[in-house]
Parts: sequence; structure tokens; C-alpha cells
Amino acid sequence: MDNFTTSTGAGKTVIGTGVVSGVAYAEAVWIRPRPELPSSGQGVSPDQQVAEFERFQEAASNVSGRLETRAAGAEGNAAEVLNATAGMVKDRGWHKAVKKNINSGQNAEFAVVGATDKFVAMFEAAGGLMAERTTDLKDVRDRVIAELRGEPEPGLPNVKGEAVLFADDLAPADTATLDRTRIKALVTELGGPTSHTAIIARQLDIPCIVAAGSSLRDIESGTKVFVDGALGTVSTDIEETVAREKIEEYAMIAERIAQWRGPAQTKDGKKVQLLANVADGNAARIAADTEADGIGLYRTEMSFLSATEEPTIEEQAKIYGRVFSAFPSSKVVIRTLDAGSDKPISYANMEHEDNPALGVRGLRIARDNEALLTRQLDAIAQAAENREDDAPTWVMAPMVATTTEARWFANLCRERNLTAGAMIEVPAAALMADMIMPELDFVSIGTNDLTQYTMAADRLSSQLAYLTDPWQPAVLRLVKHTCEVGIRHNVPVGVCGEAAADPALAAVLVGLGVTSLSCASTAIAGVGSQLSLVTEEQCQQLAEIAVKSVGANAAREAVRDYLAQLDQ
Amino acid sequence: MDNFTTSTGAGKTVIGTGVVSGVAYAEAVWIRPRPELPSSGQGVSPDQQVAEFERFQEAASNVSGRLETRAAGAEGNAAEVLNATAGMVKDRGWHKAVKKNINSGQNAEFAVVGATDKFVAMFEAAGGLMAERTTDLKDVRDRVIAELRGEPEPGLPNVKGEAVLFADDLAPADTATLDRTRIKALVTELGGPTSHTAIIARQLDIPCIVAAGSSLRDIESGTKVFVDGALGTVSTDIEETVAREKIEEYAMIAERIAQWRGPAQTKDGKKVQLLANVADGNAARIAADTEADGIGLYRTEMSFLSATEEPTIEEQAKIYGRVFSAFPSSKVVIRTLDAGSDKPISYANMEHEDNPALGVRGLRIARDNEALLTRQLDAIAQAAENREDDAPTWVMAPMVATTTEARWFANLCRERNLTAGAMIEVPAAALMADMIMPELDFVSIGTNDLTQYTMAADRLSSQLAYLTDPWQPAVLRLVKHTCEVGIRHNVPVGVCGEAAADPALAAVLVGLGVTSLSCASTAIAGVGSQLSLVTEEQCQQLAEIAVKSVGANAAREAVRDYLAQLDQ
Repeated sequence: MDNFTTSTGAGKTVIGTGVVSGVAYAEAVWIRPRPELPSSGQGVSPDQQVAEFERFQEAASNVSGRLETRAAGAEGNAAEVLNATAGMVKDRGWHKAVKKNINSGQNAEFAVVGATDKFVAMFEAAGGLMAERTTDLKDVRDRVIAELRGEPEPGLPNVKGEAVLFADDLAPADTATLDRTRIKALVTELGGPTSHTAIIARQLDIPCIVAAGSSLRDIESGTKVFVDGALGTVSTDIEETVAREKIEEYAMIAERIAQWRGPAQTKDGKKVQLLANVADGNAARIAADTEADGIGLYRTEMSFLSATEEPTIEEQAKIYGRVFSAFPSSKVVIRTLDAGSDKPISYANMEHEDNPALGVRGLRIARDNEALLTRQLDAIAQAAENREDDAPTWVMAPMVATTTEARWFANLCRERNLTAGAMIEVPAAALMADMIMPELDFVSIGTNDLTQYTMAADRLSSQLAYLTDPWQPAVLRLVKHTCEVGIRHNVPVGVCGEAAADPALAAVLVGLGVTSLSCASTAIAGVGSQLSLVTEEQCQQLAEIAVKSVGANAAREAVRDYLAQLDQ
Repeated sequence: MDNFTTSTGAGKTVIGTGVVSGVAYAEAVWIRPRPELPSSGQGVSPDQQVAEFERFQEAASNVSGRLETRAAGAEGNAAEVLNATAGMVKDRGWHKAVKKNINSGQNAEFAVVGATDKFVAMFEAAGGLMAERTTDLKDVRDRVIAELRGEPEPGLPNVKGEAVLFADDLAPADTATLDRTRIKALVTELGGPTSHTAIIARQLDIPCIVAAGSSLRDIESGTKVFVDGALGTVSTDIEETVAREKIEEYAMIAERIAQWRGPAQTKDGKKVQLLANVADGNAARIAADTEADGIGLYRTEMSFLSATEEPTIEEQAKIYGRVFSAFPSSKVVIRTLDAGSDKPISYANMEHEDNPALGVRGLRIARDNEALLTRQLDAIAQAAENREDDAPTWVMAPMVATTTEARWFANLCRERNLTAGAMIEVPAAALMADMIMPELDFVSIGTNDLTQYTMAADRLSSQLAYLTDPWQPAVLRLVKHTCEVGIRHNVPVGVCGEAAADPALAAVLVGLGVTSLSCASTAIAGVGSQLSLVTEEQCQQLAEIAVKSVGANAAREAVRDYLAQLDQ
């Protein structure tokens, strides 16, 4: 299989999914094990039950108190996460469920397990984002059970010296106060590219690998490991001198990235538009402080996830205007509502679906509700009126699969003088590019969903992370085909998925013919710096290597080897 | 959009998804409307509650009695369906829920609504096949409520003369006793190609269209309509003489099909292997009575859907042997377990998944459980020992996405002297055909799943039936590419999805380079007959037309027009 453990002599290499690049060399430290959960615990007599519940309350209060103390010493997001976890420990519904269990004769430890199971089941039944919070619930349970037993709090150990943190998966409270000076990398057995661990690691800019699989457990605490976040590898057999060299090399690259200035172009002067992905005005202002040439993906649905009613055209125009005003004269690509699937919007979405990722999402919602779409387009047109003259406002639809859909959307845009495009994220859209692209002014390839559908593997599943890898040659071949058609019909082709944030893969995409790249603000400089080191022809050679590779890991390694050669 | 209503003069045409071909011309008859459901009904005092529950019991008993009488007058599957519905009316759990509601003061009608809602919610939460049974539950509710009110039983009316039956969706009890001599076609607003309506229509061989959408309601009972099950069209503006001509034409085709004898070949003698899809020994024996050259898809998982423990190798070998013995010397293609998604197997599958169709299904299950797969391969090898010498036993894996997976599976097969292949149903497998096919002895394209993933649309969703159409040119392009690579590497390419059962599409597939077609036994003769009417070159022209069409409906119509021309 694509993910496997290779044994080379005494050492070994475990391969997971790299989500934040960077290298580190330090001792592995497994996060302190979770307490063993009691599988029974009956026999608390009625006259002891009040005392037993008080024992629980005291333990919960100690745990939440400690979390709040840590929150007070932390900042920003870390403080928020710790306070949210503390809030969960104090949750009234949970306390009530524990009390009910104790009153039926259970001891506090067992009552906590049962009450938590109940909430976990409810969260899982709710699915989506709620289901992802079950890790937090279990974390709270374990902390309180350890406290009840007088054991040390599970989770992050007190690390002495430098360490690579190993865990099955990390709870928000574990990662919130990570000591950046000591924790050099994160490696988890489970999780996926969008898991909490990955998000925190990206914020802290710590190399991070997720979904490393059960073979990670073979590496014990105290073993010296070399972690390569770009390759997704954890090696135990590397010599210290080699590891130090690699770390130095990486530091040089980091320095080079810090000094890079836009606009982006290859070594031989081929311009590549480098844009930022944003979800709101705040993110757009952060992007404006980078070398980004504009916004390549404004995810409008992110502003409405908690809305219960559709905002009016005026309200929408105001929200969109905040993003426009961060880039008053530059290109902004705004995507119409991608509601559905893991991003349900109560006023737009339909009832339960068995496979929401394959359901009525994106543009499909407007098929039976065209007015929802036209009101959004009206709001976009209204907001765009306040932009500087000639500032390009491009509008694109998510989940376009057929020529008919593309034509229909483009007509609605043009009636409002808006530049019309589509996401290429359904494989059919790439395969039918010759029919679809002449209907449009531009397209933007969404590599995350395109990979999910091309590989028929849920992008949020940690068990399938070995498949949902944007380096999959099958996906790159669809990108290549789309670019070839784009050149033939003179329609620009951008990429706005995670793929555009990986400097090496960005060079491949440019070689495939992509004319703009849009990624997280934090990734802009790394991508720009990498492009400045390679010529267009070299990008084309990288592209050739990648699409002809046998699999995702092979493609990543071959491209990396080629780039390393260029550096010499 | 791809599905729409066209107004031409006074009449109109509604387009749905055709699931059983054939033509009909008769009056539309809407199935008798469901009773309006009470939204309240409190106030039954404690002393009336026993009598109220008895009133319910009497009504339920009348309804189940009538269903059982109808069952006694029906045969085979129809009798089974009616008895199953009668059983649901008598269900103890449901009666208990009704009783509980009545005892809380509700009247019988409202109590029935509440009790049914509860069961519907449970079934929907269970998802998959259970969720599909909610139509039956609601049918039972409506029959009992009508009975309680002394109204005529809802559902199928007493049709006088010939009729085309219109409905939102059909319940099993509606379709079980359809009078084949009077009901000339079925058209439903909802449903999908695998819905109950479609299955029954296929068994009865009545032209059938599903997912026609809400515009179907514009056609009133009593309107003369012309239905074309192959095109998926319901027209009100056709002249009676034209309609009669079309029906005669179709009757001639039916006669031609009845007289066709295998083995299949084109008009100019190009051989095409025509095989049957089966799920067990019984289906294999039925297939052996047709002109099928062998079995092209034996779905092994269908034998284990209700198993709680994995059958032993010997038990499995016995089950597989039953299919082999129906075709002792002919080719049999057996597929390893495609557990997961809508076909969960308790001993093989994993916990809840958010998107089971994009989850750990098919070959992926064996990634962490190789022994499950090797035991099945051992059982297949054991069963194959009893076959005649040189009888080809081909084994294929479902859901192969990467070269590594294909190589791994092929090695396991070859260690057991089995011919190794893979389903091409994940888009990546088709896109990487040049890497994957050299690892294998053969491939078989599963058009149902390939369409689902290529279009990113759930094949069981009736709202997305306009996308999950095997005529989608995007899907045909992947078939084309796979065939081209197959010819280059001398690896045979079969098709074993619904696409192979459509005679016109089968001709297109042959033109694309497919060397074998596998479909339901009932479709074999229709496909064989169609192929005998066209030359290989004409098939290639049809293929060219289809892959260059703008969408699924355009492809279907263009191919049909071309075939109609040939007939003249």
C-alpha cells in the first residue's frame, strides 16, 4: 500500500501524511497515556450518593480551575481553546448526566464514563463538525477520571529538553500551550489534514505529520527521531550529523523565504499570480500584509454557517465589501455559497443525506432555488460597485459538473456584468473541460475536493489519508488536461486547494500550465520563494516527472530529488 | 439544467430518468392521493382509551386482512411483498407505540401518525437499506388512517381501460398487484434507478421513468400521454397516429429480441462476450438459461449481508461452487467482497462513516485485515478446483484506486494461481490505467460507481439522478481512455455496470473498445440483438458521437437518432 513501514537495518521509517513542512531532530515523547477506563462500578448505596457526586464536583472543579489558570497564562487562540475545554468540564448537561448515573448506584469514575459516552454518541449522530469535538469530550473525561483517582493529569508531559511529540490524536487542550521552544514537531497516529492537530501546527509553524498509523507505536519514548513534515516521514535510523545538516539546510531555506518579495515569477521571469484564500474581511486584511497579488478564493459560506435566516442583499453586500476593501484595486475571486456536506447552512440546505459529500451541495442547491443564487449575485454586484474602476471581480460557482450548469451560471453572472467562472473540483468538469471552459471566463481547480472524488476517498477520513493526497498523479493528470484545454481556449486556469500551498507542488502546477495559485496567507512566501528558484522549463520537467510517477509518495520524492539537485 | 420541461405548443414533455425501456400511449392515472394527516388529536379521556385502541386494532386488522387476501391471489415476489406489508401493519412494536400514544390521550389517527414518525426516524437514522423502507411504513400508516376514517384505501385505483400510472413514489404494496394488461407504464416524481419502483418495473418489463420532478404534477389524470422509457420522456403533445406507429415499431423490436440467439457479435462478425451479473447460485442458474457466455460479475458480498460471523473457507467455497456449477466450463468473473457503503457486512465493516460511499469499502477493508481477503481467495481457489479443466476463473477486486493496491491484490491472486483483475470504478484507476493495467490480467469497468464518483453525485439520490446517468460523456471518456490503454497493453476491458444493459449504450461501449459486457440476465437478449444490427465501424461512430456530446441526454438522443437512421 502507499503507506507502509520500511525496515532498513536497525532503524525504521514510518510514513504518514505531512501537513506542515519543516524538519526536526529530537527525542520522541509520547503524550502521557490516557487513564484506563473502568468497565464497571456499581454499588454506591443511596446514602453515599450525595457524597459521591460531591467528590465528582470537586474533581471537575480542580480540572477546570487548572485549565483556566493555564488559559490566563496563554494568549489568543490558545487561551480560547483552554477556556472552551474548561467550559466543557463545567457543562451543566454533563454534570446532570453524571448525577443521574451516580443516583442509579454508579461510582463517580464509571458515571463519568457513561455520561461521556452518551454525549459522544449524540455528537457523532450530529456528524460533521460536532463529531470532531468528541476528542475534546474524551479529553475532559480522562482528565476528570485521573483527578478522581489522584493520578497525574493525562495529556502533555513536562518536557525537559527538545522533543517530538507523539500521540494518537491531540486534544485542543493539549496543543493550546505547547512550548514552541521545546516541542519541535508533532506526529499523530490518527487525524487528517484538516484535524485540530494540523490546524494548530500550521498556526505555530511546527512540522507536523498526521495519520501515521499504528506502526508509530513501535517507536518508544526516548528514541531519537528525524521528522520531515514535507515528506511525512519519521525516521529512527538517521545519523545525527546527517540530521543536523538537513536542519541547517532547512533553516537556510526558511531564511530565503523570509527575504522573498513579490510579485511572484519563475527564475526566468514567467509571471505567476499568487493569491490568498480567505473566509472574511479579517483574513483578507491579513492577506493584504503579505506579498499576495489579491484574493484567489473567498469562501462566502464561511460567514453564514451559524446564520438561521438568509441575510438580505444589503447585509450580504456589506459582508462581501469588507473583503473587497482589503484589496481595493486587485483581483478578488469570490465563490458563491458552497453550502452542504460538512458545511451545512440552515437556510440553504436539505434534510439528512446518506453521503453529504456526494449530495445536493454547492451550485446544486440553486437548481431548485435559483433565487438564493441570484440574490447572492446581486449582493456581489452591489458590493463590487464600490471597488476602484477596473478592479477585477471574478465570481465562481462550486461543484459544477456539466456544461449545462456552467452555461446557466455564466448567464446569471453576465446579466449582472460579473466575470463568470467555475471551480473544477468534480472530475467530470475536468474531463469535459473542452465543453465547459468555452462557456466561462476562467476556472479554478479545487484540489481538495477534486482529490476526494478522483480517489473516491473522504478527505476528512484519517484512515484514507494515504489516498487523499494532492500529489496523486491521477489528480495531477486532471489538472494537466484542464490546463491544456485552458491554453487552447485562452481561459485562465488557477488552483485554489491545499496543493497550491506546497512549494514543490506549486512548481509542478506551474509546469502543468496553471496561471495562478491561491493558498493560505502563511504559505504565500514559501511558494513565491520556491518559484523564484526554478525556470519555467524546469517546472515543466517537474510536472512531467510527477504525472508519470506510480503514486503520490513516488511523485513527491521524485520532485523533491530533482529540486535538491538544482540547489547544488 | 440537464432535466427540464419543454413547452412545445399546447403540449409539453417532462424528462425524467428512464429505467426500463419500452413505449406506451394511454391515459395518465395518478395514484389515489394519500389521506391528509392530522396535525393534532388530543382529548381521548382515560375511560375511552381502551375502546380507542380497539378501534385502531380493528382498522389495522382490516387492512392487513385485505393485503393478505390480495397476497393469496398473487404469485411469487408480488405475494411476498404484500405479505411483508401486511406483516408491517401487524408489527407489535408499532402497535405498542400507538397504544402508548392513545394512553396519553391521543385519538387513534394522531397516535398512528406519531408512532409512524418515530419508526421512520429510527429507520432513517439507521440509513442505507433501512431508510429505503420508510416508504413502506408511510404506506401502512396511510392505509390504516384511511380505514379509521372509513375512506377508500389509498394507493392503486381501480383502473378501467389502459393507463400510465403516475405517482410521487410507489410503495411495494402498490406495485405488487399491478395489472400488467392495463398498466402500460410507470412514471414517478421521485425515486432513482435502484428504487423499488424501478426494480418492480424491470421484473414486470413495464416501461418506467423515475425522478421526473415536480413538473410531472402539471399533467392531470385523464391526459393522454406518450411514454418513452429509453429516453425518459413523458409527452402530452404527440398525435395518436404517431404514437401508434412508435408502439408498433417497438413491438417489432421486441419480436426481434425474442428471436435473437447468441453468441453475441456485431453485424460484421466482431465477437463481443456477453455475460451475466449474478449474486448467487440461483441467479447463475437463471443466467445459464439465457444466451449468456458466462458470468461477468459475481457479487460475493450479497451472500453475506446478514451474516454476523465470517463463514469458514469451506463454507465460502461451497457457496461460490454453486455459481461455478451453473457454468462448469465457461468464464466466471468473481469479485471479492465489496462490503461497506450501502452494503455493510457486520464481520468486515467499520464503525459509522460520514460518507460511506467515500469510505473504507471494497478492497480498502483488507488493508488492515489482509487475512479476510486471503481467506476469501483461498475459498475461491478451492471452489475453482472442481471446475472443468481450462474453465476460466477470473478474480477481481472492487475499489482499486492506485497501482500499489493493484499490484498487492494481483500478487495475492497469483500465489493461488488465480487470474487477477480489478474493477475500474474509482476515477483514479481509469486515469492511471497505463500504470495499473500492466499489473493485471484484466479489468472490468463498474459504470454505476464510476459515474457516482466522476459526477460526485450519490447514485441513490433521486434529486441527483440527472447527474448519475451512465450516458454522461465524462464517464464515457474514462471508458474510452481505459479501452485505449487496454488495447496498448493487451489487457481485456469489460463493462459490468447498468450501462451494459442498455442496448444502445452497449453498442457505444463496443465502439469504445470494450471486449465484454455483463448485465442482468433479462437484458442479455436485448443487448445481443442490438449488437447484431450494427457493424463494428458503426459502433465506433456511435462512440465518437457520444463522447463528443454536450451532456447525457444529448448523447442518448444523438445515438438513438443515428440508430434509427440505420433501421431505415
